[in-house]
Amino acid sequence: MRVSRHYASNLGSAKGNYRHVLVTDALAALLQALGDEKVRSGDSLNPDDLHDESLHHEPRIPLAVVRPHSTADVIAIVEIAKNFEIPLTPRGSGTGLSGGAKPITGGIVMSFDAMKAVKSIDVNDHVAVVEPGITLHELDDALSATGLHYPVYPGEMSGSLGGNINTNAGGMRAVRHGVTRQHVLGLEAVLMDGSVLRTGAPVMKSSSGYDLTQLIVGSEGTLALVTEITIRLSPRFAHSATILVPFATLDHVTEVVPSIVASGLQPSILEYLDVLTMSSVTSRAGLELGVEPEVASQTLAYLVIVLETRTARQLESDVEYLAEHVMQAGALDVYVLPDGSGQRLIEAREQAFWVAKEAGAHEIIDVVVPRSAVPRYLSEIFSLASAYETFVAGCGHVGDGNVHLSVYQADDEKRDRFLHELFTRGVAAGGAISGEHGIGRDKQVPFLALTAPESLRIQRSIKDVFDPRGLLNPYRLLDERPLP
Amino acid sequence: MRVSRHYASNLGSAKGNYRHVLVTDALAALLQALGDEKVRSGDSLNPDDLHDESLHHEPRIPLAVVRPHSTADVIAIVEIAKNFEIPLTPRGSGTGLSGGAKPITGGIVMSFDAMKAVKSIDVNDHVAVVEPGITLHELDDALSATGLHYPVYPGEMSGSLGGNINTNAGGMRAVRHGVTRQHVLGLEAVLMDGSVLRTGAPVMKSSSGYDLTQLIVGSEGTLALVTEITIRLSPRFAHSATILVPFATLDHVTEVVPSIVASGLQPSILEYLDVLTMSSVTSRAGLELGVEPEVASQTLAYLVIVLETRTARQLESDVEYLAEHVMQAGALDVYVLPDGSGQRLIEAREQAFWVAKEAGAHEIIDVVVPRSAVPRYLSEIFSLASAYETFVAGCGHVGDGNVHLSVYQADDEKRDRFLHELFTRGVAAGGAISGEHGIGRDKQVPFLALTAPESLRIQRSIKDVFDPRGLLNPYRLLDERPLP
Repeated sequence: MRVSRHYASNLGSAKGNYRHVLVTDALAALLQALGDEKVRSGDSLNPDDLHDESLHHEPRIPLAVVRPHSTADVIAIVEIAKNFEIPLTPRGSGTGLSGGAKPITGGIVMSFDAMKAVKSIDVNDHVAVVEPGITLHELDDALSATGLHYPVYPGEMSGSLGGNINTNAGGMRAVRHGVTRQHVLGLEAVLMDGSVLRTGAPVMKSSSGYDLTQLIVGSEGTLALVTEITIRLSPRFAHSATILVPFATLDHVTEVVPSIVASGLQPSILEYLDVLTMSSVTSRAGLELGVEPEVASQTLAYLVIVLETRTARQLESDVEYLAEHVMQAGALDVYVLPDGSGQRLIEAREQAFWVAKEAGAHEIIDVVVPRSAVPRYLSEIFSLASAYETFVAGCGHVGDGNVHLSVYQADDEKRDRFLHELFTRGVAAGGAISGEHGIGRDKQVPFLALTAPESLRIQRSIKDVFDPRGLLNPYRLLDERPLP
Repeated sequence: MRVSRHYASNLGSAKGNYRHVLVTDALAALLQALGDEKVRSGDSLNPDDLHDESLHHEPRIPLAVVRPHSTADVIAIVEIAKNFEIPLTPRGSGTGLSGGAKPITGGIVMSFDAMKAVKSIDVNDHVAVVEPGITLHELDDALSATGLHYPVYPGEMSGSLGGNINTNAGGMRAVRHGVTRQHVLGLEAVLMDGSVLRTGAPVMKSSSGYDLTQLIVGSEGTLALVTEITIRLSPRFAHSATILVPFATLDHVTEVVPSIVASGLQPSILEYLDVLTMSSVTSRAGLELGVEPEVASQTLAYLVIVLETRTARQLESDVEYLAEHVMQAGALDVYVLPDGSGQRLIEAREQAFWVAKEAGAHEIIDVVVPRSAVPRYLSEIFSLASAYETFVAGCGHVGDGNVHLSVYQADDEKRDRFLHELFTRGVAAGGAISGEHGIGRDKQVPFLALTAPESLRIQRSIKDVFDPRGLLNPYRLLDERPLP
């Protein structure tokens, strides 16, 4: 392996030669510490490692992509990054939507996909200890025989648990089970001084000092490098039903939602899809749901509800209750989907992002607002979209007030103004910029504009505590400098 | 009102006069900023404000007890505390068990019991916004007509929500509903620079910057002064049953617990009481549970289970399933308590602390260990207790692994050695010093000894970010200096 001339030229300046030597030395140090297998650079870089799923393309070539196999490897990489003052970009499996894991020019991408061991599963305590590179799919497989599962379901099973922790991923089952942070009991993380921090414990409660676990969850890889995760598992329910409910308007859907949440039915999934998104995701999946043509023709939005229970009898009674409830609330019909198609519909819904991407969406947003504010918020957004000649379509975790919209507007300036309005109104409605995707690079402008100065000051001071030299995932979240 | 000579003499030293002037000025400033009604000092101090429920008595006389009525009052007090460098001790309703809210000599106790407004209750969003001084009892009353409740139940309904937030209170319903932090969506808090920080939002998920809400929850009043709390509410269930299950050994109880948690029955309460604790709490409450004499005579420990469901039919089916399950696990019998006595038993259980206090317990501990480690941990503790000629009795949130033990040993040195072993083994078993009471003043020695240096370093740096002069609730948690 050699230092590509590409870097040296990228770093051009009066100090070119000096930098060139440093870069050569840094790579040499990485190779010496980790060995050839774990370091890719120059021509050996794999393009798959150089992006996430953000719709915005700002390609940058890193000095190296490194693959630690252990906490010791992570410590060695941190030491080299510090010695040579090279930015470190942690990366899970690259399924993030906010540009949080994209390389920095001349930086080191630390990819965790070689650290995916399941260290322990305790079926009595409902606790698993795993490495951060494990994907949700792999974790689900590892748990399949235990009767337990990790119930967070962000809709991309190829995402890594470490990535989920860094964005505090939510997803479809959050309405019942909560988001990632509610399932993380403890972490091992390498700090930028090379020390190893252990937070939390495999217990369900603790009141023993500041909760550093919860501080690191959702910190988008800017505070510490997570090397081990202790998660809480939940029992799988034996019985489940997927119920599809067509409505004549989106308002009908969003208005019925609070009453379903209040009913005590505890739905595991409570999703809305507008008719366009539903038709796109089902046709992409080749899925026919059997909605009668006269119903389909009147439908503008669908509610998808999953109920899970311990007994078949309880499921039957809950489904019956739900069906009556939604019909009274103006549903056009109620379809209890056969097992196979229920599951396939949820999987098709997972793919909504890909549908939007393929359709050429210019932006994906995931604003969250109070549940009851969804109807008014969406109606404002649709009016605004029309005023800005912008097209929006979407779906969302409506039980949580988490709205997913694809925004189609090629004109950058017009789109930016529309998005600014959309975020401002979301925050004004009591919500937040991102319910689950994170801020990363893509949402920095509204995040920094709409977060109070006191909060930013405290957050930046906390960042300084963990990473005084600013080497860990710079240019994201709080760090708005232009990308080098 | 006047400055009591008591303070001046307490502050004696070569600087006596200077301090005396300062103290006079500080009191004058408080009186000027807040008015007479909100400031008590000297002879007007109310002894009720000068302690919490810690069993350790280190009485200290503060300069003043102040009662802010608003965020503006809190800011004014902070400015005065800073100008005069006087320690501030926030206080809820003084039900804490760890000495976290006891006065500092010459300090200011900030009592929040005049800030208990319910600012809003949103029945669609399941969100309430309240002031920190509201007690759990008052909050429950305010919610009673809504069909919703705040499901955290630490067993002391006169505790304030603000106090609960500062210790991340848990309690009996945590096994189903989680602890305080899982129900706090946002905070308003006054920082020690006098600015007002708002964290979070009335939404169920967010991935928009570091989670400062979760950092402040559980920080024992050492980071910021919480002035407003946004909490998540849950639907009340229509049907419930309290089930009492006697077992011949405590091991039987703790061994059956994981299987009940795994069953999907989702008990709201899963408590054990050893026979001594059960007999004390029921006799104190004048409660006769109807356990047959021949069963009672064989019983060494009880499991108390509360099931809550949406329908009567489901409750019946769940109770039947549970009864079969515990009988197979070796229960001596199963009693489904009539509505009234079920409720009274839970209320009696709440009083376990008072029973222990009245019985002369020297220490109350609430170590948490992994659920499945409870049987071995308790058995170790009972052996140790015998070796140290110490008597222990207790009960606990066994569904969470949270063990409450009263420790009776008058010899300080012997008790300290026993407690050191007890905490060390709890942490070694994968647990934590305190599940829900907090560290405060009373648990500092084991906390600081058993927490890793990296963690303490980060926690202390975070404390410095929020409170660089160390005026906010000093001498607790991370600050081990001897009390002045």
